[in-house]
Amino acid sequence: MYRTNTCGELNISNVGQTVTLAGWVQRSRDLGGMTFIDLRDRYGITQLAFNMETNADLCQQARRLGREFVVQASGKVIERSSKNSKIPTGEIEIEVTELVVLNAAKTPPFTIEDLSDGGDDLRMKYRYLDLRRNPVRRNLELRHRMAMLVRNYLSNLDFLEIETPMLIKSTPEGARDFVVPSRMNPGEFYALPQSPQQYKQLLMVAGMDRYFQIVRCFRDEDLRADRQPEFTQIDCEMSFVEQEDVLQTFEGLAKHLFKEVKNLDFEQFPRITWHEAMRRFGSDKPDVRFGMEFVELNDVAKGHGFGLFDNAELVVGICAPGCAEYTRKQLDALTDFVKRPQVGAGGLVYVKCNADGSFKSSVDKFFSQDDLKAIAAKMEAKAGDLLLILCGPAMKTRVQLCALRLEMAQQLGLRDPNKFAPLWVVDFPLLEWDDETQRYYAMHHPFTAPKPEDEALLDQPDRWGDIRANAYDIVINGVEVGGGSIRIHDRTLQNKMFHTLGFSDEQAAAQFGFLMDAFTYGAPPHAGLAFGFDRLCSLFGGADSIRDFIAFPKNNSGRDVMSGSPSPIADAQLEELCISVKKNS
Amino acid sequence: MYRTNTCGELNISNVGQTVTLAGWVQRSRDLGGMTFIDLRDRYGITQLAFNMETNADLCQQARRLGREFVVQASGKVIERSSKNSKIPTGEIEIEVTELVVLNAAKTPPFTIEDLSDGGDDLRMKYRYLDLRRNPVRRNLELRHRMAMLVRNYLSNLDFLEIETPMLIKSTPEGARDFVVPSRMNPGEFYALPQSPQQYKQLLMVAGMDRYFQIVRCFRDEDLRADRQPEFTQIDCEMSFVEQEDVLQTFEGLAKHLFKEVKNLDFEQFPRITWHEAMRRFGSDKPDVRFGMEFVELNDVAKGHGFGLFDNAELVVGICAPGCAEYTRKQLDALTDFVKRPQVGAGGLVYVKCNADGSFKSSVDKFFSQDDLKAIAAKMEAKAGDLLLILCGPAMKTRVQLCALRLEMAQQLGLRDPNKFAPLWVVDFPLLEWDDETQRYYAMHHPFTAPKPEDEALLDQPDRWGDIRANAYDIVINGVEVGGGSIRIHDRTLQNKMFHTLGFSDEQAAAQFGFLMDAFTYGAPPHAGLAFGFDRLCSLFGGADSIRDFIAFPKNNSGRDVMSGSPSPIADAQLEELCISVKKNS
Repeated sequence: MYRTNTCGELNISNVGQTVTLAGWVQRSRDLGGMTFIDLRDRYGITQLAFNMETNADLCQQARRLGREFVVQASGKVIERSSKNSKIPTGEIEIEVTELVVLNAAKTPPFTIEDLSDGGDDLRMKYRYLDLRRNPVRRNLELRHRMAMLVRNYLSNLDFLEIETPMLIKSTPEGARDFVVPSRMNPGEFYALPQSPQQYKQLLMVAGMDRYFQIVRCFRDEDLRADRQPEFTQIDCEMSFVEQEDVLQTFEGLAKHLFKEVKNLDFEQFPRITWHEAMRRFGSDKPDVRFGMEFVELNDVAKGHGFGLFDNAELVVGICAPGCAEYTRKQLDALTDFVKRPQVGAGGLVYVKCNADGSFKSSVDKFFSQDDLKAIAAKMEAKAGDLLLILCGPAMKTRVQLCALRLEMAQQLGLRDPNKFAPLWVVDFPLLEWDDETQRYYAMHHPFTAPKPEDEALLDQPDRWGDIRANAYDIVINGVEVGGGSIRIHDRTLQNKMFHTLGFSDEQAAAQFGFLMDAFTYGAPPHAGLAFGFDRLCSLFGGADSIRDFIAFPKNNSGRDVMSGSPSPIADAQLEELCISVKKNS
Repeated sequence: MYRTNTCGELNISNVGQTVTLAGWVQRSRDLGGMTFIDLRDRYGITQLAFNMETNADLCQQARRLGREFVVQASGKVIERSSKNSKIPTGEIEIEVTELVVLNAAKTPPFTIEDLSDGGDDLRMKYRYLDLRRNPVRRNLELRHRMAMLVRNYLSNLDFLEIETPMLIKSTPEGARDFVVPSRMNPGEFYALPQSPQQYKQLLMVAGMDRYFQIVRCFRDEDLRADRQPEFTQIDCEMSFVEQEDVLQTFEGLAKHLFKEVKNLDFEQFPRITWHEAMRRFGSDKPDVRFGMEFVELNDVAKGHGFGLFDNAELVVGICAPGCAEYTRKQLDALTDFVKRPQVGAGGLVYVKCNADGSFKSSVDKFFSQDDLKAIAAKMEAKAGDLLLILCGPAMKTRVQLCALRLEMAQQLGLRDPNKFAPLWVVDFPLLEWDDETQRYYAMHHPFTAPKPEDEALLDQPDRWGDIRANAYDIVINGVEVGGGSIRIHDRTLQNKMFHTLGFSDEQAAAQFGFLMDAFTYGAPPHAGLAFGFDRLCSLFGGADSIRDFIAFPKNNSGRDVMSGSPSPIADAQLEELCISVKKNS
């Protein structure tokens, strides 16, 4: 061992001991008679002291050490004259008597400090240096700790972690599959799993009863700012359970994580239906750390001669507390915000509830003070509040108002990353209409069971949109961190579902044949859930981006700029794989 | 929840309780007045009792249940009249009052019993049924348990589990890489990792200090009987350590597993050098559960006019205890065994040490009784033993004799799967000569450090074969379950190593450039080890094959016969990926 102790563990109780430390030179201070070096490792920082008077050679040697040199230093632990109360080792230093340079280092391209001067691109290119920084390292430590907590919690509940294959069957509709040519089977391909969905259902058919896996998944799609081509799920499945059992089990897991990581206790998580979530928040993943719930205003807003309201399917608003003093400029900015193509509203109506009890609105022409008072009353606004109102087709308008609600919360500092508001969203629609292809798609996936009381609607195509699924999401702070459903375990119902989704028997067999076969040999009722682990970690870490909770992430083009992947491969290798690359015209 | 209890937990203390169970029909016995059904789930079997007299309808219903039907049964726990002491629930049964068929089942294609009548192919095609069998399920339970033990043990030693990428850089020499075309980067490919070797070394450069990962790895090579294209490693790396630290750490892990899983205690594992292992056992993964060590016989075997011995580089034998009575037929079979192409010996010399003190050999023409006595004495043979002797070029002969030693141990029942003999093999050669390409290759990998005292030999090409590496394997029962090395952390030495291996600077940069770059920014001394987790599980499970310790394995052609992967993909998908499949001529 190159060391007797780490750089994070020595304190006043070790004074007098002779120790050897090893680590990186964080910084060096030359005070003439003395040279001090902060030696860093994963566990902390310890100060090394070199005295020009007692050992000039060694002190000179120390002065030549550059940032990030790797050194080994031996000496005696002594009490510091000038103590640093900010770090656990701050009361001591090492009076160095022996110094070995284990490795030199070029000057790093950015500072290895909590706040680095490195931009994103530079940090990613030199990710191995970026990972030396405390905040990034702490993210990975948190991730490790959360994975251990999850595994031990589920294992104690008799869940078995079972590894499912990474080289799986490619399916005809798997447009987002990464594929892998097989050398031994020329012209044939494996796919990388988008999730172990079918395998975990097979494990239930296999009687494994309770399965989980912290597992890598893959999706070859255009990457939004915070998606990765490979990501990690906490994937779970249980047999002989109903929705309530699943919710209780994984709410228990979430509470365990909150308690262990954040020392937070929660009562039962609130549950709202998908329809209620859309009505109250315009989102199936509402951020409920704050209020500003939607108030529907059709009864008080219509019939006053304001055409936009009168002709709209829905008039709906939020009450922004204490914002009546917003300036013209601020209000214009909000209008611009909702008119951005990403939001897509036609405009914004505001009503200021002035301190003196009067109202000022952008539609004063159509609404009397009493009219506005009625609106304010309906919205339970207080003097000093600002009402923000949108109108249009119901669902579209709700989604637009959701964006505005989140924007206002951001401006008001209500999206506190240290506050946590979990909830369940239940009763998702089973099917989702797609205007473009003019057909219904499964909102979750084709194995999701309809609510038994809605099953009969499968025979009424005009009611398909009304069918509710036994599907649920767990949402924390406006982020969907997990979701799942009761699965269909009855083959007849599954076939009906496939037909509803427009699959021919052949297509269904080609895509899901072996799972359907398995279901004929005694499939138990089962259900499951998967958490997005990268996202869960970033949420617990109080960060917006998942990237810094992944050791070696890829950028928005799916590139690892550090290693330079992906990259062309040799012709000989293509030859062996019996494939060739087509040049784009 | 579909049940109040599992099928494995009710016993005499529950008598009188009303319970609901759910599971699979294992078997059904119709005794006229009574029908009994064994209901099975992952946790056990509970007997359901139906009485024709008290509830004829229900009893009739029960009689119609087929094997593997999924049912839910409610009733009262009663004491059995005829108890079964072999199972924990054997003292009770359920007097069923309510029965629900949750799912019907077709008759399975093989019996779901401990000893199934299904052949390998059938079991693999219906793996989800095979997994219902106790022995297979227990293997996966063992695997889960071992993974938990490993993770908790290493985590308690401050190892962090850090996920490394699965989509990595393809390297020019990565002939065994699986590759993955990138849709977003046409003409470019990722590779799937054969191991996270470079990433774990980067994590050491990143200061992570102690890393582990239970991680999937991939190798696109022709599969021997017991290889899989995807396999799982316990991958580990540590900084600021010497070989002794690594050996102690992972010997600790192995002992922990032996204690927890097998309740076995071990003293320090024996250590032998690679050269000693080859000399004493003809293998770098010796099975030391039994003796029959090699005895070199040049001094007593040569000079008696037997040309094969006289002209051989090495005459070497083993003493098979108590085998002097082997028949002519048995001895011929042993000769045939060593002459098989897989072993490749020219012939076999035997010496029987008869009970009366006389000797009988296949070379009596050349050896007197005294000559044979001298050989027997050298081999410390006792009356009743059989000496088996091979000769030829030293290393080749040793490897042949190793095969014979293992075969004899098999015949003598000395390879007891319930006995465990771990050891370390150390001081592997750094380089391995390849006759075909007439050059040296790295025996482990190009990052393995030579022993410091042998480093100078890198400047003497004629001595390259003598350079010993700081590399070590952990071997249990003749199986290499893990291996690793001290890594080179000095760039100059690494460059010298690349040149020794015949890499040009350009080739080295293309293949390992980003790792080499990283090493210039302060790489700590580091070392690591990886266990083959599939193999480790099968060893602890007392089985020879890894296949039944993998939930969904592939066959020798890399095929999953259950799902039918790999398979052709749609032209549209090939188009999107900018690749085409070449027809083989």
